[in-house]
Amino acid sequence: MESLKKRILTSGEICPGGIIKVDSFLNHQMDINLLDEAGREFFEHFKGRSITKILTVEASGIGIACLAARYFGVPVLFAKKSEAKNLSSGTYISEVFSYTKGKTFTIRVDRRYITSDDKVLLIDDFLANGRALLGLIDIVNQAGAKVAGAGICIEKAFQEGGDIIRKMGIDLYSLAVLDVTDDGKIVFVDKN
Amino acid sequence: MESLKKRILTSGEICPGGIIKVDSFLNHQMDINLLDEAGREFFEHFKGRSITKILTVEASGIGIACLAARYFGVPVLFAKKSEAKNLSSGTYISEVFSYTKGKTFTIRVDRRYITSDDKVLLIDDFLANGRALLGLIDIVNQAGAKVAGAGICIEKAFQEGGDIIRKMGIDLYSLAVLDVTDDGKIVFVDKN
Repeated sequence: MESLKKRILTSGEICPGGIIKVDSFLNHQMDINLLDEAGREFFEHFKGRSITKILTVEASGIGIACLAARYFGVPVLFAKKSEAKNLSSGTYISEVFSYTKGKTFTIRVDRRYITSDDKVLLIDDFLANGRALLGLIDIVNQAGAKVAGAGICIEKAFQEGGDIIRKMGIDLYSLAVLDVTDDGKIVFVDKN
Repeated sequence: MESLKKRILTSGEICPGGIIKVDSFLNHQMDINLLDEAGREFFEHFKGRSITKILTVEASGIGIACLAARYFGVPVLFAKKSEAKNLSSGTYISEVFSYTKGKTFTIRVDRRYITSDDKVLLIDDFLANGRALLGLIDIVNQAGAKVAGAGICIEKAFQEGGDIIRKMGIDLYSLAVLDVTDDGKIVFVDKN
């Protein structure tokens, strides 16, 4: 998505440890026109897949998931994140290690809201090591539902998440796949 | 908003402690058509106020804020929540006590994203004791910006948040203000 790539180049900041800060338009302050365009792009790519539900994880995936869901005409479900391992017979849970925060979170979804009839589109703002997305896939599998695909705004080519997800045979569609050159410049690559 | 009130009556659950569970359509699974209608209602009410930004708090306010922001054509900013008091010169912070969780959170917003020129509309899914909304108002005040109003999906008439906010002279617009009768039935009252 050209407008997203342009925006990353004009407003993104590269921080130590390969962290790309895009909180002026994507995951703290959100440019709604840009996110709405992202939602429409996901719809154009995945519209033939009979999607019944969009699943994301709190917090920064929720906005994009909601704007995409308008095009699909389906509900959004967001996995809740907690540090406590909150076992309950009423929820599907999965453990997600966050490299950014250096700790493991439990994500959980109420069992009533995913059934084996669902074709689930996963949406998130970022894909780096892929742990959050693998947690969502685990939950969809536990429910006996089908992963219809995964839509990501920004994928980092220099971390392994994208390759892991593609090797699983999942249709992963990233709107911008970025790499950082040795002299610290952002460049875009094609992985779709 | 009649469709929201109907949905609360058909799908809401009253739990012990005055907790109204609406996670089948509002704050876990989200009915996007209903939330989009809520966003349009907020726009109809607040459209004359020259709003420049919508501010909410993670996680369940984000979806409604994003859908409302499409109508206003303004960015959304969501306050991040953490248990640690993460003091930094770059952020506005406020302390918010959660009665539901029985603990105090710090909410924070990057100073770069609210300025004294902003007219800020606050949006959230729920208003009970009002602590989250008061935290957001505190942050807007710290930035020298103006609170243009507050849009809430569900206000609980039997908790004090709504009255506190209205006494501050803030235009609080709640799409459904609910009370629970002695025999445990949900009824709606008019506070707007």
